[in-house]
Amino acid sequence: MKLKIGIPKGSLQESTLRLFKNAGYSIKLSERSYVPAIDDPELEGLVIRAQEMGRYVENGILDMGITGLDWVLEQNSKVIEVARLRYGKVGFRGVKWVVAVPIDSPIKDIKGLQGKKVATELVGFTTRFLKSKKIAATVEYSWGATEAKAPRLADAIVEVTETGASLAANNLRIVDTILESETVVIANKTSLKDKWKKTKIENIVMLLKAALLADGKVGLKMNVPKAKLGIVTDILPSLHTPTVSNLSDSGWVALEVIIDEQIVRDIIPSLRRAGAQGIVEYPLNKVIL
Amino acid sequence: MKLKIGIPKGSLQESTLRLFKNAGYSIKLSERSYVPAIDDPELEGLVIRAQEMGRYVENGILDMGITGLDWVLEQNSKVIEVARLRYGKVGFRGVKWVVAVPIDSPIKDIKGLQGKKVATELVGFTTRFLKSKKIAATVEYSWGATEAKAPRLADAIVEVTETGASLAANNLRIVDTILESETVVIANKTSLKDKWKKTKIENIVMLLKAALLADGKVGLKMNVPKAKLGIVTDILPSLHTPTVSNLSDSGWVALEVIIDEQIVRDIIPSLRRAGAQGIVEYPLNKVIL
Amino acid sequence: MKLKIGIPKGSLQESTLRLFKNAGYSIKLSERSYVPAIDDPELEGLVIRAQEMGRYVENGILDMGITGLDWVLEQNSKVIEVARLRYGKVGFRGVKWVVAVPIDSPIKDIKGLQGKKVATELVGFTTRFLKSKKIAATVEYSWGATEAKAPRLADAIVEVTETGASLAANNLRIVDTILESETVVIANKTSLKDKWKKTKIENIVMLLKAALLADGKVGLKMNVPKAKLGIVTDILPSLHTPTVSNLSDSGWVALEVIIDEQIVRDIIPSLRRAGAQGIVEYPLNKVIL
Amino acid sequence: MKLKIGIPKGSLQESTLRLFKNAGYSIKLSERSYVPAIDDPELEGLVIRAQEMGRYVENGILDMGITGLDWVLEQNSKVIEVARLRYGKVGFRGVKWVVAVPIDSPIKDIKGLQGKKVATELVGFTTRFLKSKKIAATVEYSWGATEAKAPRLADAIVEVTETGASLAANNLRIVDTILESETVVIANKTSLKDKWKKTKIENIVMLLKAALLADGKVGLKMNVPKAKLGIVTDILPSLHTPTVSNLSDSGWVALEVIIDEQIVRDIIPSLRRAGAQGIVEYPLNKVIL
Amino acid sequence: MKLKIGIPKGSLQESTLRLFKNAGYSIKLSERSYVPAIDDPELEGLVIRAQEMGRYVENGILDMGITGLDWVLEQNSKVIEVARLRYGKVGFRGVKWVVAVPIDSPIKDIKGLQGKKVATELVGFTTRFLKSKKIAATVEYSWGATEAKAPRLADAIVEVTETGASLAANNLRIVDTILESETVVIANKTSLKDKWKKTKIENIVMLLKAALLADGKVGLKMNVPKAKLGIVTDILPSLHTPTVSNLSDSGWVALEVIIDEQIVRDIIPSLRRAGAQGIVEYPLNKVIL
Amino acid sequence: MKLKIGIPKGSLQESTLRLFKNAGYSIKLSERSYVPAIDDPELEGLVIRAQEMGRYVENGILDMGITGLDWVLEQNSKVIEVARLRYGKVGFRGVKWVVAVPIDSPIKDIKGLQGKKVATELVGFTTRFLKSKKIAATVEYSWGATEAKAPRLADAIVEVTETGASLAANNLRIVDTILESETVVIANKTSLKDKWKKTKIENIVMLLKAALLADGKVGLKMNVPKAKLGIVTDILPSLHTPTVSNLSDSGWVALEVIIDEQIVRDIIPSLRRAGAQGIVEYPLNKVIL
Repeated sequence: MKLKIGIPKGSLQESTLRLFKNAGYSIKLSERSYVPAIDDPELEGLVIRAQEMGRYVENGILDMGITGLDWVLEQNSKVIEVARLRYGKVGFRGVKWVVAVPIDSPIKDIKGLQGKKVATELVGFTTRFLKSKKIAATVEYSWGATEAKAPRLADAIVEVTETGASLAANNLRIVDTILESETVVIANKTSLKDKWKKTKIENIVMLLKAALLADGKVGLKMNVPKAKLGIVTDILPSLHTPTVSNLSDSGWVALEVIIDEQIVRDIIPSLRRAGAQGIVEYPLNKVIL
Repeated sequence: MKLKIGIPKGSLQESTLRLFKNAGYSIKLSERSYVPAIDDPELEGLVIRAQEMGRYVENGILDMGITGLDWVLEQNSKVIEVARLRYGKVGFRGVKWVVAVPIDSPIKDIKGLQGKKVATELVGFTTRFLKSKKIAATVEYSWGATEAKAPRLADAIVEVTETGASLAANNLRIVDTILESETVVIANKTSLKDKWKKTKIENIVMLLKAALLADGKVGLKMNVPKAKLGIVTDILPSLHTPTVSNLSDSGWVALEVIIDEQIVRDIIPSLRRAGAQGIVEYPLNKVIL
Repeated sequence: MKLKIGIPKGSLQESTLRLFKNAGYSIKLSERSYVPAIDDPELEGLVIRAQEMGRYVENGILDMGITGLDWVLEQNSKVIEVARLRYGKVGFRGVKWVVAVPIDSPIKDIKGLQGKKVATELVGFTTRFLKSKKIAATVEYSWGATEAKAPRLADAIVEVTETGASLAANNLRIVDTILESETVVIANKTSLKDKWKKTKIENIVMLLKAALLADGKVGLKMNVPKAKLGIVTDILPSLHTPTVSNLSDSGWVALEVIIDEQIVRDIIPSLRRAGAQGIVEYPLNKVIL
Repeated sequence: MKLKIGIPKGSLQESTLRLFKNAGYSIKLSERSYVPAIDDPELEGLVIRAQEMGRYVENGILDMGITGLDWVLEQNSKVIEVARLRYGKVGFRGVKWVVAVPIDSPIKDIKGLQGKKVATELVGFTTRFLKSKKIAATVEYSWGATEAKAPRLADAIVEVTETGASLAANNLRIVDTILESETVVIANKTSLKDKWKKTKIENIVMLLKAALLADGKVGLKMNVPKAKLGIVTDILPSLHTPTVSNLSDSGWVALEVIIDEQIVRDIIPSLRRAGAQGIVEYPLNKVIL
Repeated sequence: MKLKIGIPKGSLQESTLRLFKNAGYSIKLSERSYVPAIDDPELEGLVIRAQEMGRYVENGILDMGITGLDWVLEQNSKVIEVARLRYGKVGFRGVKWVVAVPIDSPIKDIKGLQGKKVATELVGFTTRFLKSKKIAATVEYSWGATEAKAPRLADAIVEVTETGASLAANNLRIVDTILESETVVIANKTSLKDKWKKTKIENIVMLLKAALLADGKVGLKMNVPKAKLGIVTDILPSLHTPTVSNLSDSGWVALEVIIDEQIVRDIIPSLRRAGAQGIVEYPLNKVIL
Repeated sequence: MKLKIGIPKGSLQESTLRLFKNAGYSIKLSERSYVPAIDDPELEGLVIRAQEMGRYVENGILDMGITGLDWVLEQNSKVIEVARLRYGKVGFRGVKWVVAVPIDSPIKDIKGLQGKKVATELVGFTTRFLKSKKIAATVEYSWGATEAKAPRLADAIVEVTETGASLAANNLRIVDTILESETVVIANKTSLKDKWKKTKIENIVMLLKAALLADGKVGLKMNVPKAKLGIVTDILPSLHTPTVSNLSDSGWVALEVIIDEQIVRDIIPSLRRAGAQGIVEYPLNKVIL
């Protein structure tokens, strides 16, 4: 039994390989090959453009794949989204596809695109989106460097952006956001009906999520006098019950909790003042709550 | 008066900028802008994908542009080719677009593509080419990583190659070459009817060629006894008459010639033995023969 | 409420930013700005030379700052030292300011400076120091490259050194050490009378120290037969009581302790011989004992 | 009391220093010195070629050293092998010394070396090995670049290889493996009779092994309902008994285990389905089982 | 006889060393030494801050030095300026010292500095400059990072700038330029009265200028029919008479000229059309017109 | 017909390849191969240690080779030295083999080596040298890191050095120089009797020398009034007659000469003062006087 999995070539590739590594899988690419070596004999990988992932998961050449939501929608692929991979230091970031026009353009909102020329790499989605809004516009394919198109070569562009800096540097103004995208795990409908494949896909997703979750979490443990357990517990975020264990010294308990790394600096002084001792923060590789 | 010139973004960009520098033009790109600063007030540049160059030269948005012949043909652009830029250490290399199939495929020649699926970035040219050969095949757009497509996702691919190494590394066999491409300078038909623009374009091409030619040439000068001038001249390549000037010492002449750098090592020992003295090889920046 | 904090520019900058990062604060500097972005809305940062930190904390422009003790003394600043930041892999190192003379100079000790010319970046402190020793010398400011000054341009220098290597390479001999310096946290006297500011400063210092302390500590845990608990505990450093917890197997306890990384190698063999099993050392991010 | 220890210069140097660092020892080399600074006053180091380590451990100039088994055998050194250092991300890899001949050589096995010329860096071992097999051949010392020797300068070579790639690239065919080597810790016979030295050597080896073992292991902890403890325990590898401790909530226990990093991805999904909660994987520095 | 020459340490150092190299002098610095090795036994170098160059040339420790005009004026050094080194690809650039204030400051011109506090590295010059304008202001020394000083620590700053970008990034507005500086060669007054030293200094300056001039010039040579010599000569810039030499073929002459590299691209097409043949541009190391 | 040529691997490799490139030959090495690709079908290359070059040229496996004189002498090779390659920016440097002892050793000169142990990589030459001086010493082969050998492992060392810095850093003192070495071209005796091979070797040496010579030479040309020709010619070095050609303006001549780059700086001022105009220095690729 083999599960065929698609790894995205290009901007998502490095983050994807790192996330799999953190999840426990070694995926290695030799320089000119597109079939990576994976240290799990049940997996068969194929490195392929994010733009084409939806197409090949849909027609069953792949059982599952990692790609961007934007390209799934652009291709209008009939696939099942099984997970979203977000946050994490590993480097997945949400992006927006926006309508942008020259700073001094009279176009104020997307209705202003009526009768205009729009340049974009996302021709399919943009065309369907404008149609759904009853706006008739010419949508033209752009091979890249799309920011340079307006106003010389088009009236507006639809382009991907994280911070808007590149648009501003080209004297463009954002008019509207038409799609918020992030990295998704998609699967073939038929594959999900096969019990072995379904479980295998779920296991991989569980480990990817465990690695992503650990990225922003740390372990915190401390010793607390039994009499102060309530006060200390109140300081901790309520999301998740801390693990409390008895110590040989019956007046004390050991308390352990997994929390957001960002919260630690705010609660450590309070914990200390409330009577906790031997407070220790330690790093984590994987977390499944 | 302004001449609008297109600079190719991507793989040709660095070589193009270096060639213009050698020709005497400084073209500078700030990081996120597509309008380069050029130190010639008569030029207005735009950085644009090689794939789209033909489109924008054809419709007059640009007067001239540098791009690959392959993308001019793919877009079927109605433009005038005014020069080919080849050889030169600056880095322009010819490339081939070939039909390739898996090593063990039964397909032996392009006729074998009848009824098959072909993946390529060059959908337009490939479709027209196959039609002209009366071959009916499905040509599917590939976003890149095309070598990985056959045999899993297509029966054959049409892909660009210099040495064939990447194809071989993916277990593909070349069946035929359907296009030999190199870097070309193209111009808009109407622009060439404008006398000022025509001269400006010719001047730029003359300097680009002068810089390319100098890349593989060197200057060679030497002193020769008048009595041996014939023997020495016979050793030199006949292409171009050497410049012979009189010296104060009336028994000697000075001889100077521009020749291929690669020939120098073969003729210097003969020149020396034939009586030439003070033989000196020196580098060149530009050559117009 | 805002607390104004000074970050030292120059040699201490990188270590300071890394220490804050380990403590849980993200402080980011854009290339030409001196106002860093800090992910704590209660903090307002200013990047400033260590030489000037004392001056600006003293006059209340900053509430607190990180700098070198040497520059606090040079400036003779009236500030409160709230902590010393030392050791730690993060990179703070103690330095010495020494009097150095050419190898063949007749000067043997600081008394030999009587009537001589001394070049240094630390004019204020050196002048006061020599005066306190009743030595009359001319102290001249040096913009750097101070090692090159003697004997050509001065009779002696006062210069900072870690290992003495640069002095030796310039044929200089160390005569005496006049100041041992390390990194300090200083605060404004008035700010410390404001209750909110005082608590905020204490919290930051607590976290900086927790991060520094974790740098040289590790966690050690092991399983110990109840009968051997005494022997094992005797091996552990007595500074801090270990955490002992009961295991399901009532003949054993689990023992956990935070200790100096450097001690581990010395006690692990003894622990093993005393009967401890499953000994594990793990890394820490923060430690508050 | 001092223990004199040899650190191998060259290909093993970086891995050795990293392993000692993980084991708790800082060994620092200044650029042109061969006496490293070690932060243990009982150790005195000397950086020396792996080829010469056996010689100096044998004659007592060093008490112990790290080197390759191949060079111990080449030198025929009378030393005691106290440990083998293998696996680990730190970078020790086993290597093989093979007999290789040109692809088209008639030599099929080592008997074919009879009367031939063999080039190698491992003259001593090769000579003794061939003699033991009753094969008379001329064995010639090679300063390196040995792959280039056959067939021009020798009929066969004996060369070290990991993957065979370099041999293949030089058109050589492997005929036989005559030595499988790995990194070893060796000690002087007399030193091992000294009780203090013997214990010191054993302690160092214990810590090196603890660091190597931690390289491929992680800690895993989780909370388990008492009722499900049996099922969960059955999922864990049986090698090592997990540590089970009681929680304040009497229906649950905390379970902690040290396991191979590679196994984690296979058992986490099962643990989760069996009822474990709050599963956390954390990194380790040292492990002594 | 020795001439003592000062080489500026810091921002001018690399450009200065490169210029001397182009002029024919090898000046080499070992890492921690300040006495460079110069391949001219008549020169004795000393590497010293630009800020201190004027001082040491003035008092005769150095005969000549390379530094910035700004630091000569700041130190008010009594030295003779013997040359200005400008333009050239070698990297000398003119800089301006400007008065800058926060964007929203009420200060509009330098008269607005009356009664204000000004921070600068250029205390001496600024003080004298303001006094000469009858403006009473407090001028305070700044160790650098001066842009961060206003408005927090000063009302205005006097700072060096090339493009103004760093000032703008710190929200500062330029009020006035008080000094335009460039790289200068300065000499000691007494040294210039010594005939040997005067000639040596003049020779060095001649070579530095020859190297700087060659930076922007190229050689151009071509063959011209005698009948067209007038037309061709008219195209060439009139500054400098071209060298015309007779060829063996009496109908032709060879013409050679040194011209600005930037002009070449403009005149080559005209030269070609006027009948010049074998036009060659070649690089130059030094030019003395 | 093929000429077999040896290229030295190791420290001379890069300089050798660069010199051949300047001479007009492209020699390319793929990573693990020892047979370089040369763009001259009459040459067959082999990359081999300098230590072994003499041996293989002597026995005719190579017709010629580039190596160090030291290794030719060490091996006592019976070969013909056809050229010395020295000076040149390409990077060949002379080196010395010296006897060095610990700073505090009683050994004062080479006679002090009587009865001592000497460690060196140059066992053969050292042994013969000491024998010729009637000194009986034990000479022991060292694999490198020889500076660390004395005094621990030997009484003295014989080691290669350029500046002595590495010896000094290891507390060693130079006692005597026993060999001054430089890069040599050697040839096989029999090959030199073959006319074709002899001519081929001479041609290669002529081009290598032309490239080396050009490294330190430049072209200098200037216009001179006929009346001053004598004075100007007297300033030029007498080695080589300058080329004097008539100009159209009959009162002037053009003068051109190839001279040492290092001399230019000394004569340009004199030439200028003697009346030369339009003095230009230009770079050279090859020079055959």
